[in-house]
Amino acid sequence: MNKEYKPLLALTMGDAAGSGPEIITKALAIPEISTICRPVVIGDAATMQAALKITGAPGNIRSIKKLPEAIFQEGTIEVIDLQNIQLERLVRGRVDTMAGKAAYQYIKLATDMALSGECDAIVTSAINKEALNNAGYHYDGHTQLLAELCGVPFVAMMLVSGNLRVSHVTTHVSLHRAIELIRPERILAVLKLTQEALPLMGVNKSHIAVAGLNPHAGEGGLFGDEEAQYITPAVESARKQGINVTGPLPPDSVFFRTAEGQFDAALAMYNDQGHIAVKMLGITEGVNITLGLPIIRTSVDHGTVFGKAGKGTADATSLVQSIKLAAVMSLKRKR
Amino acid sequence: MNKEYKPLLALTMGDAAGSGPEIITKALAIPEISTICRPVVIGDAATMQAALKITGAPGNIRSIKKLPEAIFQEGTIEVIDLQNIQLERLVRGRVDTMAGKAAYQYIKLATDMALSGECDAIVTSAINKEALNNAGYHYDGHTQLLAELCGVPFVAMMLVSGNLRVSHVTTHVSLHRAIELIRPERILAVLKLTQEALPLMGVNKSHIAVAGLNPHAGEGGLFGDEEAQYITPAVESARKQGINVTGPLPPDSVFFRTAEGQFDAALAMYNDQGHIAVKMLGITEGVNITLGLPIIRTSVDHGTVFGKAGKGTADATSLVQSIKLAAVMSLKRKR
Repeated sequence: MNKEYKPLLALTMGDAAGSGPEIITKALAIPEISTICRPVVIGDAATMQAALKITGAPGNIRSIKKLPEAIFQEGTIEVIDLQNIQLERLVRGRVDTMAGKAAYQYIKLATDMALSGECDAIVTSAINKEALNNAGYHYDGHTQLLAELCGVPFVAMMLVSGNLRVSHVTTHVSLHRAIELIRPERILAVLKLTQEALPLMGVNKSHIAVAGLNPHAGEGGLFGDEEAQYITPAVESARKQGINVTGPLPPDSVFFRTAEGQFDAALAMYNDQGHIAVKMLGITEGVNITLGLPIIRTSVDHGTVFGKAGKGTADATSLVQSIKLAAVMSLKRKR
Repeated sequence: MNKEYKPLLALTMGDAAGSGPEIITKALAIPEISTICRPVVIGDAATMQAALKITGAPGNIRSIKKLPEAIFQEGTIEVIDLQNIQLERLVRGRVDTMAGKAAYQYIKLATDMALSGECDAIVTSAINKEALNNAGYHYDGHTQLLAELCGVPFVAMMLVSGNLRVSHVTTHVSLHRAIELIRPERILAVLKLTQEALPLMGVNKSHIAVAGLNPHAGEGGLFGDEEAQYITPAVESARKQGINVTGPLPPDSVFFRTAEGQFDAALAMYNDQGHIAVKMLGITEGVNITLGLPIIRTSVDHGTVFGKAGKGTADATSLVQSIKLAAVMSLKRKR
């Protein structure tokens, strides 16, 4: 039975004024997607209908109120319709409080469904932080919001593109602040979350690389001592706890080596260390995963693409990869 | 006549205990090289002879004392023989003061030849900093040494791989120190050096991107204020001086965009910002150029590869690319 089990994925529509709805219609039109999962969009059916018209993607929208109504017929995009967008008022490509509020409601419902086990994973489309904040939800993005909805104190961001999996010890802080946050407890916590997540991606005996902070990983103290002071102690603690880890390694080559398959994942010390590496492999290829949640959550690795909203030209690759990875992880967890 | 002019390039042999000599024999065996330039190795002929035996590359070594003796016959590797390696004492893959001293002498002679106009450019193989220091030459690497030999106070490192050209505002300092060094004068100086160098690479009307320091280029001050305080003022000064420049841009996408051809070059604020981007395109592809010298200097973008020394297995791609770029730049400057 497991072999034929198709994970049920809740796809949030994201910001209605962005390219999210259009991207979803493109992604769900790919035949492979319906063979590997049962996707349900959590969104606004009228907005999805309009997006379908814009992209000209095949399929039709089926508005439902609750999950049990879904029939998962081929060519049909099931939308749990929150009816929270007044389409006639929506201007695409513009920050809109209504769309920000609606985006919050999609995430809330999808998270609740995942927490209760109604769905296997959630896949999120991009939201606009300003719209979210204008609507009264003060979060720096999805990750912080999801952590709160799930009641967990610490999460970490992993980016995935092909063979390259990168977990981030810090993300949305200044580089100066990142240097202050890189301490053994935090590095160790991200190492543990990474090791726990890898089996869901098919890696059972993992080998994790840890990047240094400084050029050449400090060159023996010549270019900084954070490696000796903070990173090496964390690596040593991790080893004592049975994690197979190597580092700190020179940051300029560790991500290439990981992408080549020398390591199953790499730890980046700061946002751009990991993000530059992943995005060089293709700016539309990446998938964002939140480690440390009690639910599986993957996400597109791009913003709302306001500039292309309404034109039907936004690239769906990142969403397609996010759906595929969520399906794989859901199946692995079920086994 | 210019059309048939083949630039004369001085190739330094680098550290004799590393893979440099072997890499040179491989690179010079590529027929294309002899059609675009006249290479002369500045090194030790016996070491080059041994390297040729190790790699089994075609060709033979011709030991000469001075440049005018070179005849540039196909299949012949001309070596200005400093006779400064006792081959029977050399252990490959081990730091050796004799090799460090010899490496210095190759660089000194090659630089003098370029400064006097005897050759068109120098192409350097990797040196071992420890060996160099043990020999009494206290430099953090080639760049600092070349600046001193040429008598210039400020130089900048550019890495090139395919379409991606990245100039670095800081390199061999801790990340913490790099944040302190990123000031308008320095950014502006590197912008100017970059703009001046691009015509030598065939780009006459250049458009240069400048990376931010912080995630999302600071996200409007939320993730740091160095963009507003230091980078934007530098960009504005550069524009007033007629440099076509855009930025600060989000670091995670600017290098991908530059590699795609949206910009002719990008400025990286710190070593790994640029190095990660370039190395993700292929760890053996990069070429290192020193901007700000009165001579043209390209270099391999890797170390001595001690681990492969004596085995003949080190990759010659970076040296081949370095030779090609030096030839192109030499021709452009002549015109």
